[in-house]
Amino acid sequence: VLGDGDCTPPGGLGVMEGKAMLMKYLGGVDSVPLCIDSRDTNGKNNPDKIIEFVKMVQHSFGAINLEDISQPNCFKVLDELRETCDIPVWHDDAQGTACVTLAGLINALKLVNKKLSEVRIVLLGAGASNTTIARLLMTDGADPAKIIMFDSQGSLHTGRKDIETDTRNYRKWELCQKTNPQGIKDMDTAIKGADVLIALSTPGPDTVKREWVRSMAEKAIVFACANPVPEIWPYAAKEEGAYIVATGRGDFPNQVNNSVCFPGILKGALLVRSRKITDGMAIRCAHSIADFAERRGISPENIIATMEETEVFAVEAADVAMQAIAEDVARVPMTWDEVYQQAKADIAASRSLVADMQRLGHIKEPPQEMLEAALQSAIEAVK
Amino acid sequence: VLGDGDCTPPGGLGVMEGKAMLMKYLGGVDSVPLCIDSRDTNGKNNPDKIIEFVKMVQHSFGAINLEDISQPNCFKVLDELRETCDIPVWHDDAQGTACVTLAGLINALKLVNKKLSEVRIVLLGAGASNTTIARLLMTDGADPAKIIMFDSQGSLHTGRKDIETDTRNYRKWELCQKTNPQGIKDMDTAIKGADVLIALSTPGPDTVKREWVRSMAEKAIVFACANPVPEIWPYAAKEEGAYIVATGRGDFPNQVNNSVCFPGILKGALLVRSRKITDGMAIRCAHSIADFAERRGISPENIIATMEETEVFAVEAADVAMQAIAEDVARVPMTWDEVYQQAKADIAASRSLVADMQRLGHIKEPPQEMLEAALQSAIEAVK
Repeated sequence: VLGDGDCTPPGGLGVMEGKAMLMKYLGGVDSVPLCIDSRDTNGKNNPDKIIEFVKMVQHSFGAINLEDISQPNCFKVLDELRETCDIPVWHDDAQGTACVTLAGLINALKLVNKKLSEVRIVLLGAGASNTTIARLLMTDGADPAKIIMFDSQGSLHTGRKDIETDTRNYRKWELCQKTNPQGIKDMDTAIKGADVLIALSTPGPDTVKREWVRSMAEKAIVFACANPVPEIWPYAAKEEGAYIVATGRGDFPNQVNNSVCFPGILKGALLVRSRKITDGMAIRCAHSIADFAERRGISPENIIATMEETEVFAVEAADVAMQAIAEDVARVPMTWDEVYQQAKADIAASRSLVADMQRLGHIKEPPQEMLEAALQSAIEAVK
Repeated sequence: VLGDGDCTPPGGLGVMEGKAMLMKYLGGVDSVPLCIDSRDTNGKNNPDKIIEFVKMVQHSFGAINLEDISQPNCFKVLDELRETCDIPVWHDDAQGTACVTLAGLINALKLVNKKLSEVRIVLLGAGASNTTIARLLMTDGADPAKIIMFDSQGSLHTGRKDIETDTRNYRKWELCQKTNPQGIKDMDTAIKGADVLIALSTPGPDTVKREWVRSMAEKAIVFACANPVPEIWPYAAKEEGAYIVATGRGDFPNQVNNSVCFPGILKGALLVRSRKITDGMAIRCAHSIADFAERRGISPENIIATMEETEVFAVEAADVAMQAIAEDVARVPMTWDEVYQQAKADIAASRSLVADMQRLGHIKEPPQEMLEAALQSAIEAVK
């Protein structure tokens, strides 16, 4: 659970209720948070139980959004459900984060005038999110030979027997085979002259060393997305020469926030009754978000749309729906404009409902003491 | 699924959405309809899959309401979940129907001046509902020796090897052992001089024969609850001498309708965070409904409160909560008045929310053609 560790099932409900609220308010999509106990009698989480649960309940929903499934179980759960369910199954921790990161990188590269197919990329962290980011980057044109990825044991390469022998890690093993053909093992060598660093690793501020950033190429791009503390503070990365820095935090520029993606991509998939959300649809969504931001203007401190830019969601929905139709996974044919207008109307209806409920007192103001306690606790965590 | 046969999982969603609406509107309880696919690879419904599913999802809810689980699986599912879950698990088809039937019978007996402990009762049908009715009747004071029950193969008695040998039927076998000590086998003998007939069997109008009713005792009470057509038309039962007739239909007097029970009993159980809903709580709820109706006046054509009598739900909630506290299954101590006031406030808030949403157009009027088509289809079904 984001920021709270392994406290599921009941402890996961709060974050999921918040996401359900965003789903409705930003995307006009009704959703229900279900936190499930997937532990076996031995106390260990069993991915097959999650798979079975989703298959049993799928007929009650238009789509499923998975969250908080730890590695390596998440690979099997998502991959099997994507193939066997007749409705979209989305893993927001992995696919949502990957989509938004790709969106940010697309615009960052425009600003430094480099091409995705030519840049050297280092990924720090090989969890569900970063492995999915690597896959989407390559599908969208990044050169696997120019990607080097690190997990807690070092770089990924074909010599990593520990990954090869654990079949649950098949997604990581694919990356061992595809990336880092020279088998570079140490970060100092890997990062030297790299154009892009994408860190989704342990909270900093010293997880990413200043000297790593210093040794990167001109106009280096750094994503330091750990929460609550980025792997390196943005000011430190900038001092060492980074040209663009993105983080997971809303109080710094360039927040990489899933909330700008999942309400829109799910809305688009649902409106055309898509059977799944393909990698192609996630990549299309990333370009949709990036292009939306570019049209209203981007800068090194402003590379990506935020969830306050409410217009972005209907555009995403329409773009994603067109991709679903192009890939022949949509069940309902619609034009771009039909999806856009319907999504816009549904989102407007959601917002007007929430506004009316607040105005009439059906949604009450949160208690002031609670807000202050939450703020205090956040300040403590960052100290 | 009520009126639609075995069309689950997706076909069950409509009725469940309606019940969720009633739960909110009548009881101030938020609920989510989940229709699940419990079939094994062999295509047969597997009760263990339902049990596993509920155990996995229980942490996301305050209580679980089961519906549309066929015999004999329903016995195992409910009994095991009632014991192993830490929240109330309610099976509305069985317990809800039993509770409301008992409520109606309590008042019917008052009107004919007979005692539950003394009357002879015949039950036609031995499904989930009627077996639960029999259990609650006996717990509330009916004499097992004066009860005779029939399923499609004849009366229940200790000679029924077909029931004894199928362990899934353990609830029915209990009734074979407890009731009908004389081992009466035919309906003509069983019904002669009986005071009460409770039919939850196949739709009529000739499932219950006129001559059966004719042979019953003075001031006979007949519950003919099959839908859409009662086992015997009320006018026919009256012509044969029945003094009070109840059915499952809203267009005849004395409708036996679960909706007068489940929103109230669940509200009461939830407010005191009860660990379960015991048979004692269901019986208390039945008396609560019966007493409420008696206070405002009962007659042979009006033995039970209806769901339009909105005051009944907060009273039920408070009575049920007190029973939970008395049986030591409640986690939060509250007084009768505290539960009553809270339930009343929550129900009022639900109704005001719905009214505001309708007034402001967030809940739209159903299309007129749909209403007419539904009416037409209902008329066809009854013809």
